[in-house]
Amino acid sequence: MAGQKRNIETVFSPALFPGFRNPDAIAVIVDILRATSAIVTAFHNGVNRIIPVGTLEEARTFKQKGYMVAAERDGLVQDFADFGNSPFNFTPERVKGKNIVYSTTNGTQAIQMARECSRVLIGAYLNFTPLVNSLLQMDKDVILLCAGWKNKFNLEDTLFAGALAEKLIESGKYRTICDSTLAAVDLYTCARGDLLAYIDKVAQRSRLRKNNLDDVIDYCHTFDITHVIPALKEDFLEVLEG
Amino acid sequence: MAGQKRNIETVFSPALFPGFRNPDAIAVIVDILRATSAIVTAFHNGVNRIIPVGTLEEARTFKQKGYMVAAERDGLVQDFADFGNSPFNFTPERVKGKNIVYSTTNGTQAIQMARECSRVLIGAYLNFTPLVNSLLQMDKDVILLCAGWKNKFNLEDTLFAGALAEKLIESGKYRTICDSTLAAVDLYTCARGDLLAYIDKVAQRSRLRKNNLDDVIDYCHTFDITHVIPALKEDFLEVLEG
Repeated sequence: MAGQKRNIETVFSPALFPGFRNPDAIAVIVDILRATSAIVTAFHNGVNRIIPVGTLEEARTFKQKGYMVAAERDGLVQDFADFGNSPFNFTPERVKGKNIVYSTTNGTQAIQMARECSRVLIGAYLNFTPLVNSLLQMDKDVILLCAGWKNKFNLEDTLFAGALAEKLIESGKYRTICDSTLAAVDLYTCARGDLLAYIDKVAQRSRLRKNNLDDVIDYCHTFDITHVIPALKEDFLEVLEG
Repeated sequence: MAGQKRNIETVFSPALFPGFRNPDAIAVIVDILRATSAIVTAFHNGVNRIIPVGTLEEARTFKQKGYMVAAERDGLVQDFADFGNSPFNFTPERVKGKNIVYSTTNGTQAIQMARECSRVLIGAYLNFTPLVNSLLQMDKDVILLCAGWKNKFNLEDTLFAGALAEKLIESGKYRTICDSTLAAVDLYTCARGDLLAYIDKVAQRSRLRKNNLDDVIDYCHTFDITHVIPALKEDFLEVLEG
C-alpha cells in the first residue's frame, strides 16, 4: 500500500513469541553470541546447507546417519558432535560444500519456532547491511526474534535488534509501535559509541569467559564481513538468492 | 552474609517468570499503568484489604457474594463491577475501611504468580522511597516482576524497575548480573531527564488515550505521595507494618 509503513516488532525471548501473531511477516533470528554469527560464517565459508534441529536427540540421530554435526549446550561441545558453536569452527576446509546438522542452546529452537512466518532469515552483525537491504526490498512487516538465553532476555541480541530496527526506521519505510523495539533502539543508542565496552557487562560474556570461549566476541560484533543471508527453506537453511 | 551483596533480577513479563526460581527472594510487582498505582492509591486512601483475583469469573463470584469489585480488561470497566482500574476511582469515600476484590488485565495475574516468593510487595512511583527503604531493611534478593501487557514487554514498568534497581545498587548492598536489570537501568537513565516526555511514546499511552483514560499518566509517575507499601498476606493485600 502506498504511504503505509511496514511494522517492526521485537521479541526479546522465544517464550514471548506466542504473543506476536503475524504470519505474513519476515522473521529475523538473532543469536549474536553465538549461533547466528556461526551460521552466517558457515555460509560465508561455503557450507551448502545447515539443518537446524531443536533437540540433542535429533542431532545424535543425524550423526548416526553419517551427517556432520555441530552441537552445543551451555557453551560446551556435545561428545557425539564434530564441533560446537564457535564461528571459528566453521572453516572453509571443514564446511565447504557440506550439509551440516546444527543444534544449540537457544538459537536453533528460535529458528524452529519462527516457521509460521512467511520467511525466516538469519541475522548477525557479520551480514548487517546486506540484511537491511534485503528486508527493505522484500517490503513486509519484520519480527526480530531474539534467541535470548534459556528463554530470558539478553542484551547482546537486543542491541542488534536495536541497530537493525533503527536502520529500517531511518529508511522511512518502517515504523514501530512496539515497546520492545523502542527499548532496543534506545539501548543501541546507549551502546553504539563503544559497542564492545558495553558488551563487556552482559551476562553471556561472563558465561563464555568462564569456558574460555570469549575469543569470539570481537568477531561477532564486526559489521559486514559478508553478503550472505541464510534463509530457511523447508527444513534447512540455504543462502538466500538475490 | 557480611560482604555478600544481594541480587536484583528483573522479569519483563509474567511469561518469563518461570525462568527465575528464587523462593527466598522478595517479589515487587510493577504495573505502573495502572494496577499497582491504583492499589497503592487505594491503601493510601484507607482501604482495608484488596483481594486480587486472576479471572473475571472469580471477580463475578465475589460480586455475587456482596463484595465491592474493581475489574477491568483492556482498560474497560466490566459491567458487573463497581469500578475499574483508574487510581482516581479508589477515593477515600469509596474505599476507606472496605475490602475490595480486584481483577485487571495484567497486574493481578502477576501478583498470583509471585506467591512462590518469600514476600510479595506492590511497587509504584507513588510509594517509591518507602519501598526502597523497606527493601534495604529486609535485606533479601529482589525480583522485580513487571506485569507487562498481555505477556509482552512494556516500557513504563521497565523504567520503574530501572529506577528501583538503580537505588538498590547505589546503596552498595545490591548488585545485578541480570541483563534485564542492566537494560532497565540504562533505559531509566535515558528517560529520567523528562520521564513524562519519554512515556509519551509507549504503547500503553496510546491504548489509554484511545479510551480517554490517559488522565492518570502524570499522577502514576509522581514520586512519593505516600508511605504505604501493600503486601500480600495469604490471599489478600494489606499494608505492610513497619
